[in-house]
Amino acid sequence: MSEALDMHKKWHGKLEVISKAPVQNAHDLSVAYTPGVAEPCVEIAKDPSLAYTYTGKNNLVAVITDGSAVLGLGNIGGLAGMPVMEGKCCLFKKFGGVDAFPICLSTQDTKEIIDACVAIAPTFGGINLEDISAPRCFEIEQALKEKLDIPVFHDDQHGTAIVVLAALTNALKIVGKKLENVTAAILGTGAAGGAIARLLLAAGIKDLTLVDRKGILYKGRTGMDWSKTELAELTNKAGKKGGAKEALEGADVLIGVSGPDTVTADMVKGMAEKPIVFAMSNPVPEIYPDEAKKGGAAVVGTGRSDYANQINNVLAFPGIFRGALDARASAITENMKLAAVRALAGLVSDEELNADYILPKAFDERVGATVAKAVYDQAFADKVNRI
Amino acid sequence: MSEALDMHKKWHGKLEVISKAPVQNAHDLSVAYTPGVAEPCVEIAKDPSLAYTYTGKNNLVAVITDGSAVLGLGNIGGLAGMPVMEGKCCLFKKFGGVDAFPICLSTQDTKEIIDACVAIAPTFGGINLEDISAPRCFEIEQALKEKLDIPVFHDDQHGTAIVVLAALTNALKIVGKKLENVTAAILGTGAAGGAIARLLLAAGIKDLTLVDRKGILYKGRTGMDWSKTELAELTNKAGKKGGAKEALEGADVLIGVSGPDTVTADMVKGMAEKPIVFAMSNPVPEIYPDEAKKGGAAVVGTGRSDYANQINNVLAFPGIFRGALDARASAITENMKLAAVRALAGLVSDEELNADYILPKAFDERVGATVAKAVYDQAFADKVNRI
Repeated sequence: MSEALDMHKKWHGKLEVISKAPVQNAHDLSVAYTPGVAEPCVEIAKDPSLAYTYTGKNNLVAVITDGSAVLGLGNIGGLAGMPVMEGKCCLFKKFGGVDAFPICLSTQDTKEIIDACVAIAPTFGGINLEDISAPRCFEIEQALKEKLDIPVFHDDQHGTAIVVLAALTNALKIVGKKLENVTAAILGTGAAGGAIARLLLAAGIKDLTLVDRKGILYKGRTGMDWSKTELAELTNKAGKKGGAKEALEGADVLIGVSGPDTVTADMVKGMAEKPIVFAMSNPVPEIYPDEAKKGGAAVVGTGRSDYANQINNVLAFPGIFRGALDARASAITENMKLAAVRALAGLVSDEELNADYILPKAFDERVGATVAKAVYDQAFADKVNRI
Repeated sequence: MSEALDMHKKWHGKLEVISKAPVQNAHDLSVAYTPGVAEPCVEIAKDPSLAYTYTGKNNLVAVITDGSAVLGLGNIGGLAGMPVMEGKCCLFKKFGGVDAFPICLSTQDTKEIIDACVAIAPTFGGINLEDISAPRCFEIEQALKEKLDIPVFHDDQHGTAIVVLAALTNALKIVGKKLENVTAAILGTGAAGGAIARLLLAAGIKDLTLVDRKGILYKGRTGMDWSKTELAELTNKAGKKGGAKEALEGADVLIGVSGPDTVTADMVKGMAEKPIVFAMSNPVPEIYPDEAKKGGAAVVGTGRSDYANQINNVLAFPGIFRGALDARASAITENMKLAAVRALAGLVSDEELNADYILPKAFDERVGATVAKAVYDQAFADKVNRI
């Protein structure tokens, strides 16, 4: 048995729910349970905002999946996605001090997922959607944002986009280019690809092309879902056609969130001078760092911990929710995401910055607190705070 | 500020979700999260029963409420019910070693509650419904039992009924009467009253009368919901009419799950010789023990911890779920409930048994394990085990 299977079997899952309140004698029970517990209930019934004072809502995040797009495994269903959700909850606790709880759904119907999330929302101070396939994930997130007064965040979209933009911010410093002047190609148009595109556009990029399995997205291409149609409107101003090779020709930046082994050293050679290559398919990247460097890449990042420049969501989501929960934010705004980007990028000083160190490490203890502070402050600036 | 409010504020709720698996370095992450976590996912996708091996499902119970009947507070809604649900989860952990998690719903619609429970069920090894008003609670429980392959248990019904029948079993020994020969009156026809009636009937009682706010249930009484109509069919063979006073005339047993101060010493005087009085309304019982004894009660129990003979669900639900989870039971059968009754009653030896000691105490460490063992064994006997 492998180490991972062995560990999961040994612990029977990775989470435990424990009592913070003492429950050692009849007096404790009368305070934590009946009759004492009636008092906070009455207070919350009078003023619902007191749920943040008297219950765990102030620190609880639901990690919700329908298991339709789990890791690189595809649609394995909610139950089989449970180990990933439990792992995510461990990371929430470790890196953000957030109590996170996995909710694995039995349905993959968009409306039923929305209804279930709305039904269970009162327990939580935030909802983290996870491993839900595109384009349903966009609809679900949008509907929940409209219906709920707690932050709803699809980490595969926004967590990824935030860390990519932070990495890109620093990588561009190394190659001496500016975001508004570069040409970028994103391979992959799922949850991550779409969100990265939107965040890069919000940050000021002008020339951006997206590529799915059938090739470059362009206006008028047939067979695209509504999300791709929208992305085709927003990108590829030059009207390029073709595949990954054509998209990469002359590009300054490659962002891969697609699948293994789709990029060659020759394709990197066709990019602009000092190209930046983020090949984040996991565990096998679009192109391995050695190959990318053979093609002339100036800065290379992957999703893996065993290469330099790991571009991993764990740098973002724990601090983002920590900050949002501490502000009792009703939402995570675009500005809060951009504040997280700046905070993350800023953790690498100009002196430290080099082609093998563009982002802080996952276990850098400054990360969670620094991101949290930036997000917290921005929640106040954006007036979505409720304290 | 009261001690209870102070405690709830201090701890910000009573639960914490912690990581059992180590997450201290990059290697730990590669085992608990990507890429290692993909392995248990793949195994569960191939064989869903392995979720009990590789995830926390084997020890997780959802404590679900819509907040429609919280304690004696009535319909305060799901959010305001959260402190009670958290407290229940603390008791699950303390007395049964069960990881329980509160789910407070935003809906009180029967179908929406059922849908939400079904949607989130994959995460859990069992569902404990809590503080949902009658008669919806009966429909919801029944529907979930049909739709799900994990135990669904409405504690206000079955937990209460189990502890009452255990208490009654021992009280009858003291007064030298047999269940099949006694006359009993139940005040209250909500979740608890209905379930107690059904369990007493299953255990062999012949003469049983139920009383709601409008008086005795009898066949043909108008204005009854479907549940009361059904209970009227099953009980009151003598066709009694009237109120609590008439129901108690000549009765051997009074079981109160209604409201405060509804029974007088005079009404107890009208009961049969050596009457048993369980006045479980909380915190103010139907009649206080002193008054009941003035009326001639031979054995008195209440729901309170500050009087002898506390009849409290905490004696039942932690052990019942412990046993059901350990057997990976697909359901909690009637036989499993009766096994819990016998186990609980059996914890008071004939030598110890007296009018002030008919049930073990909540903090008696034998309780959880003894109930669990009985329920576990009965799961195998009833072939609902899955190990």
